[in-house]
Amino acid sequence: MQDLINSKGMLDLENLAEEISARLEWLGEFGRDPSGGITRLLYSKAWSEAQDALKDWMEEEGLEVQFDEIGNLSGIVKGNDTTKTILTGSHIDTVTNGGLYDGQFGIVASVLAVNYLKKHYGQPLRNLEVVSLAEEEGSRFPYAFWGSQNIVGTANRKDVELISDFNGVPFVKAMNEAGFAFKDESKAPRSDLIAFVEVHVEQGNVLETEKKSVGVVHSIVGQRRYTIEVIGEANHAGTTPMGYRKDAVYAASHMIYELIRLAKQLGDPLVMTVGKIEVNPNIVNVIPGKVIFTVDIRHIDKNAIIQFTEILTTNIKKYSKEHEVETTINMWLDADPVPMDSRIVEIIERQCVKNNLNYKLMHSGAGHDAQIFAKTVPTAMLFVPSRDGISHNPSEYTDPADLVEGVKALITTLYDLAYKN
Amino acid sequence: MQDLINSKGMLDLENLAEEISARLEWLGEFGRDPSGGITRLLYSKAWSEAQDALKDWMEEEGLEVQFDEIGNLSGIVKGNDTTKTILTGSHIDTVTNGGLYDGQFGIVASVLAVNYLKKHYGQPLRNLEVVSLAEEEGSRFPYAFWGSQNIVGTANRKDVELISDFNGVPFVKAMNEAGFAFKDESKAPRSDLIAFVEVHVEQGNVLETEKKSVGVVHSIVGQRRYTIEVIGEANHAGTTPMGYRKDAVYAASHMIYELIRLAKQLGDPLVMTVGKIEVNPNIVNVIPGKVIFTVDIRHIDKNAIIQFTEILTTNIKKYSKEHEVETTINMWLDADPVPMDSRIVEIIERQCVKNNLNYKLMHSGAGHDAQIFAKTVPTAMLFVPSRDGISHNPSEYTDPADLVEGVKALITTLYDLAYKN
Repeated sequence: MQDLINSKGMLDLENLAEEISARLEWLGEFGRDPSGGITRLLYSKAWSEAQDALKDWMEEEGLEVQFDEIGNLSGIVKGNDTTKTILTGSHIDTVTNGGLYDGQFGIVASVLAVNYLKKHYGQPLRNLEVVSLAEEEGSRFPYAFWGSQNIVGTANRKDVELISDFNGVPFVKAMNEAGFAFKDESKAPRSDLIAFVEVHVEQGNVLETEKKSVGVVHSIVGQRRYTIEVIGEANHAGTTPMGYRKDAVYAASHMIYELIRLAKQLGDPLVMTVGKIEVNPNIVNVIPGKVIFTVDIRHIDKNAIIQFTEILTTNIKKYSKEHEVETTINMWLDADPVPMDSRIVEIIERQCVKNNLNYKLMHSGAGHDAQIFAKTVPTAMLFVPSRDGISHNPSEYTDPADLVEGVKALITTLYDLAYKN
Repeated sequence: MQDLINSKGMLDLENLAEEISARLEWLGEFGRDPSGGITRLLYSKAWSEAQDALKDWMEEEGLEVQFDEIGNLSGIVKGNDTTKTILTGSHIDTVTNGGLYDGQFGIVASVLAVNYLKKHYGQPLRNLEVVSLAEEEGSRFPYAFWGSQNIVGTANRKDVELISDFNGVPFVKAMNEAGFAFKDESKAPRSDLIAFVEVHVEQGNVLETEKKSVGVVHSIVGQRRYTIEVIGEANHAGTTPMGYRKDAVYAASHMIYELIRLAKQLGDPLVMTVGKIEVNPNIVNVIPGKVIFTVDIRHIDKNAIIQFTEILTTNIKKYSKEHEVETTINMWLDADPVPMDSRIVEIIERQCVKNNLNYKLMHSGAGHDAQIFAKTVPTAMLFVPSRDGISHNPSEYTDPADLVEGVKALITTLYDLAYKN
């Protein structure tokens, strides 16, 4: 790897910051809203144009380009051994009115990294493949990770055959009109993948707060989501003395306050959020008879999630009794934590140390394509900071200096994975 | 009053329970929903039919009947001294899909009581007047107490000239089509009224819980209403550690729980209700950036309301600081408590004791026409129980035995006011 280092002891990547920024702006033109955001939903016109533009760019750079059946776009540098592939990339779709970084920075970083390696080192030992994944966000259809799930073979046509977008356009119609179709599910998924590395914006404020440029992700959190329904008695706000009330808001506020307080006390990496509250009848002069609220719990350790579930259940029962209300707890999401591949995490960390990158070993609190790949392919992730933790918003931003650090970390990692014996 | 008492030492009121129930059912047919409830909004067809039917009944009973300009219906027994009037009654309008008792029981009770007195004692010393007030609920137009405010001279045509109902029908058009028009506001209000007594259902569960048949109201609560806005920072529920959050729901739940707890500790006659909560963006996996909630505080003592306002302000400031959120407190309603006339309250209580009625001296937590009259006319109120505290609902119900007790209390009170020197 020595010849990646210039005379100043730095990776020799002149003008990389400008190149990254220019490519992000260029790719961000596909699906640009007049308001400044980007809307590039799966199989839309903007999505097709972006994938086609990426295809052209990859071809210009001398990559072998191909779409798979459902619309994942790959640009490949064949290795000596073509049975083994190091895959890198991220997703091309965005949320409605998203920003310049979420998803597309990972693709731009991967193309630039693979180009750099090809240019400096020629043919790798193993295939190097950049992937622009068709879909991750679940923004158009009620289905997420369509791109990565098709690659690893966990996508199921029956899950999308009957779904439509918010305009009533069926998934299958949109896919066919974009020029794609279902994979043959009787075929086994790809067996050449020996590594997947994704670069992504953090979508949180940890790197920014701790003044780090690169996050080396060791695991993606598991999560559970609940809906808690608290039933009291709706009554007149003026004529019902305090002692005669079964006030669902009083009970629910006690539960919510105590649960968040306990989660805060337990602290990192546990997070707990009550994001949604619905009060019934929600009228200023009626004591609420019902409150429904959601709970989102995340942790990198399944046991910690189970333990907090017990705390949740115990406290909700306790305060239900104290406030004389009836409460039901309904868990509707239970996803296990996904550890990244320890060998690749070690490679990345070693390269960060060696190249003097300002990094932090951390977990991801959000879901990513990496968690889909990790089930069957050794997988790791790199983060770059999100200013103010903002994502899914036109104002998402990362300092170009940090973007460069992210690309450097990716280049050195891919070099290790694809070129070393 | 002795000859009101029969040989068993009871008021001689054979078949009164049946008569009340029959009259409630009869009057309840005007505006009856197919579902069983009653909808009799101001100046609607059902409203006009109900007032006309009441007019016919009053005429049959020998009362002198008249509508005022805006549609309040009166049935009068002239006294020796026609310059002094004892007024009794309640409102004929209902909420949408209301019950058989709210408002119309007070009218039925008043007609029956005045009939009884006229039949047994002939002409009173002072005028006895039953009033079926045009409007109290504010259910059709955004204006309440239209009936009573017109009698005491606090209604203002400019407040209703530009308002319309939910179908866009202007107030003035509806009034004119029902055959009524604005009062001449240059004329002074009536000066003959020396007492107003209203019978009403409690709309709470105090009488039921304490197993009392009659409530003697000594005051109507004052109230303040607030909107509290809590501004935190919306952020990703997975990627924002607990220590980095400004969670508006955490702060608001702490405020709400503590305020209700303190109100409960202070106890009767203070009541405090958080009836309405709006969370923003209200999405399961986003830390809420904003919570808006309402506070409704009621008490019979203005100073107690002011004191609790101070508790509210202090606590909200304290928890805003603790949770690092910005909070604004906006008071949008501030109504003073209204004490009932102590002389009439004493008369009622004396009559309850004398006639062995199972009564309780209490306050009203809800607003009533009595609070409008009380500003200029010596006023008092009688309550009968509401089963389960339910009102504004087809299932509102009072045991006929309790209705009888309410009518007895009214008869004896009106006797004292209209027949005694």
